[in-house]
Amino acid sequence: MTTGARAAGAREPQQERSRLTRERLLDATIDALARDGWSSATVAAVAERAGVSRGAAQHHFPTRESLITAALQQIFEDMTESASVAKAELPEGDARVSAAIDRAVELYTGKVFKAALQVWAAAASDPALRRLILPMEDKFAHAAHRMTTSMLDPDGTDPRVHRIAQVTLDLARGLGLADTLSDDSARRAQVVAAWAEMVSAALQTPH
Amino acid sequence: MTTGARAAGAREPQQERSRLTRERLLDATIDALARDGWSSATVAAVAERAGVSRGAAQHHFPTRESLITAALQQIFEDMTESASVAKAELPEGDARVSAAIDRAVELYTGKVFKAALQVWAAAASDPALRRLILPMEDKFAHAAHRMTTSMLDPDGTDPRVHRIAQVTLDLARGLGLADTLSDDSARRAQVVAAWAEMVSAALQTPH
Repeated sequence: MTTGARAAGAREPQQERSRLTRERLLDATIDALARDGWSSATVAAVAERAGVSRGAAQHHFPTRESLITAALQQIFEDMTESASVAKAELPEGDARVSAAIDRAVELYTGKVFKAALQVWAAAASDPALRRLILPMEDKFAHAAHRMTTSMLDPDGTDPRVHRIAQVTLDLARGLGLADTLSDDSARRAQVVAAWAEMVSAALQTPH
Repeated sequence: MTTGARAAGAREPQQERSRLTRERLLDATIDALARDGWSSATVAAVAERAGVSRGAAQHHFPTRESLITAALQQIFEDMTESASVAKAELPEGDARVSAAIDRAVELYTGKVFKAALQVWAAAASDPALRRLILPMEDKFAHAAHRMTTSMLDPDGTDPRVHRIAQVTLDLARGLGLADTLSDDSARRAQVVAAWAEMVSAALQTPH
């Protein structure tokens, strides 16, 4: 998105410039949340991070609440979109199981999840924010579950896959949380491998 | 602890009174973090919550940093202690597997975990806090892993248990995070049952 914003010249229509400014502000908000935490995501701080004047930022987001709400929508759209990307060329057998698990884990280990975690923590004590998040989270959870089941069982014939996908996603969320304070990738690879082996074994037994 | 504090009369030695005041302040800090989030855990707000004068609170914790540090130690001591309680009368077979998984999940679904989550979120953008947390978290992780492996495999003979315990604890952490914004207990029970079944099946195959 940054590249898009940079490529936009002075002659672009006002509407397009406005859309790009908004996009830059939202990207900067997600970046601020993920890197510097909840308190860093104010309109003024985000405007500075995005290289946007405070006036322009306030035109788009008059209050912190409106900024956070829009950023949340962006966060969950990004996460839901990541969970919806076409299956493309899926490998077969155990490699397919591994690919499905890797995709689930990726949903919870990137910058967008780290930003979401800050909003979750803030929402734990903010009922209004919680009401805003829950339906978005629900939509994301369904998309993530659909992605995982369809990767694990493209034919949609194995009744055990529903629960296995749930365990996979809860495990992925736990691995994501473990990665927030230090790089947990080496340990995570072992846990993922152990889980992939168990899923492969479970799916190979007749149902 | 509240009962202990209430039972303490005016004639108790000064040292004991001081210890109880400190304990009440730390309990109130954990309660504040879990219920009202990071920003609510200041010395003044915690003193009020604990029913302790601001002067007395500042005697124990002159700065917010000293309060948070002590609360963190308390949080991880509580979590490590929960993970260390004697196995007592362990059931056999599948019931033992279920008991082990339930215990792991309990570590991540109580008030203390919700308080810890607030500190984790704050530490994501606070290197000093992160340095403080990491060794405590490491100690807790080892205790939790020891508890889970020894419940799953009391004889210590099954080499697969090491990894299965890791998956169990990462899954439990993910379930804990899913429970912070809404009551997830019904869905969680299904996920836990599915996982318990997979663990039982895995441990029943010869190794």
